[in-house]
Amino acid sequence: MDLKSYLEQARQRVDAALERYLPADTGSGTLLEAMRYSLFAGGKRLRPILCLAGAEAVGGESGPVMFCACALEMIHTYSLVHDDLPAMDDDDLRRGVPTNHTVYGDGMAVLAGDALLTEAMVLLTDPAAYGGLDPVKVLAAARTVMRAAGLQGMVMGQAADLEAENQEPELATVQFIHSLKTGALLTASVVSGGILAGGEPEQVAGLRRYGRRVGLAFQIADDLLDLEGDAQRLGKATGMDATRGKMTYPGVVGPGPARETGWRLVDEAAAIAEALGPGAEPLARLARYIMERTN
Amino acid sequence: MDLKSYLEQARQRVDAALERYLPADTGSGTLLEAMRYSLFAGGKRLRPILCLAGAEAVGGESGPVMFCACALEMIHTYSLVHDDLPAMDDDDLRRGVPTNHTVYGDGMAVLAGDALLTEAMVLLTDPAAYGGLDPVKVLAAARTVMRAAGLQGMVMGQAADLEAENQEPELATVQFIHSLKTGALLTASVVSGGILAGGEPEQVAGLRRYGRRVGLAFQIADDLLDLEGDAQRLGKATGMDATRGKMTYPGVVGPGPARETGWRLVDEAAAIAEALGPGAEPLARLARYIMERTN
Repeated sequence: MDLKSYLEQARQRVDAALERYLPADTGSGTLLEAMRYSLFAGGKRLRPILCLAGAEAVGGESGPVMFCACALEMIHTYSLVHDDLPAMDDDDLRRGVPTNHTVYGDGMAVLAGDALLTEAMVLLTDPAAYGGLDPVKVLAAARTVMRAAGLQGMVMGQAADLEAENQEPELATVQFIHSLKTGALLTASVVSGGILAGGEPEQVAGLRRYGRRVGLAFQIADDLLDLEGDAQRLGKATGMDATRGKMTYPGVVGPGPARETGWRLVDEAAAIAEALGPGAEPLARLARYIMERTN
Repeated sequence: MDLKSYLEQARQRVDAALERYLPADTGSGTLLEAMRYSLFAGGKRLRPILCLAGAEAVGGESGPVMFCACALEMIHTYSLVHDDLPAMDDDDLRRGVPTNHTVYGDGMAVLAGDALLTEAMVLLTDPAAYGGLDPVKVLAAARTVMRAAGLQGMVMGQAADLEAENQEPELATVQFIHSLKTGALLTASVVSGGILAGGEPEQVAGLRRYGRRVGLAFQIADDLLDLEGDAQRLGKATGMDATRGKMTYPGVVGPGPARETGWRLVDEAAAIAEALGPGAEPLARLARYIMERTN
């Protein structure tokens, strides 16, 4: 398989579905405009693609889980909008364009984030979207996603990150923050796809082990790109973690050992995916692609 | 029935359930503390009580819908925390105590609100909480709640409110903002209780008509209290709507006609509740209580 064209095709399908689930509607004014501004600002759609690939990995179809994939992207986008706020990371640029609050003001950016998170749940509970899927599995997938997004996941990671700024860097703290802030939702992406597609418990467990490794590797790669990457190609300022005194994995162990750990994690993840069978080939390829980006 | 003791008893049951669903846990640090700070700041628990009473109104038990009642209070609390932010209403005092961001900082208050909204969904999809209820009805109730909270409800109302400040006051705009900002979630409270308790479609439709009237009346009463009420008794500053140039119902039509409209709405709501049968007596009494508060 050609990973690049797989990713590009999946991204286009996700974009088209997001357009269907959150269409432009002049009646709803600035709020909807602000939501769509960030939702369609050119993301890689990694979480949705992991969800679709998770469904395929357990031998299912990706089409029926597209609604969950789109909900994951709405949740990811809301977290970016809120993280960029002056009260948080105070970023002016994201994916090469001005951040939401820079364009719409802080108040509207808070609301746009709130609405994206809420609409994700509206979508996860939409009978027209989940169609013929088992409602118990729909509830389980929604719960998996929301647990990963909240107090035991992403928001907790962001809060720990906020509190850890300018503290003495420690590996355990960095891993704790990363596993919550990024890892939890990435893991939930692949797991929710597997649950909805009817994966057996041991398949879902495999997806969870895959997700944890890919989640941590993704954050390590992101930190490496911030440290060594090219601002123009990334569409955002680099070197910002150091400027802010943020704890990062390469900052604590050094870029060399961080890269080694990242590669070990994605190799393990790829092996776990390969053991799931031929449907998991995209997941296996995707895992290694995460570290290839940093070369 | 004695409404005061009904409300007090229900409030205590809701508080005990909230304590079970979001227990203090020293392991989770500031984020959980900030969430609990606002969740247990002494609210009237009107939305949870409407949910419990909605279940009783269709002839059901209130116990099995308690998880939904608690989710509604988490959503309501999140909206207060975000509304109070400097980027929004910039309030220092709420229910007689300092607002969340005043105590924990703007960034943590954004996150505490985000986490309360997310945990509401974690709760709505918890099999240990929804127990033996029909999963299709659980999904329908969750969707009812989330639609009312998001782009077609509360967040949209808050966005419209933000944009309408210092605009020429118009009755249609005030009603539009109120129906979304307050009415939608109040309506969803009573409707979700009815859905989960197995209400027939015509009973649920009755609850919806009840909720719309009670929702608008509640906002009129709130505006009247801001205009004429006693700051000390209310635990928050009064006269703030005028100071901020906020559009209010009494501000547009005058306090006398506003009070008349409020009473007409709660009388209609009480009549709708009475038609639902003896189980809806608390709803009927509650409707009139909303306007009695303003006397």
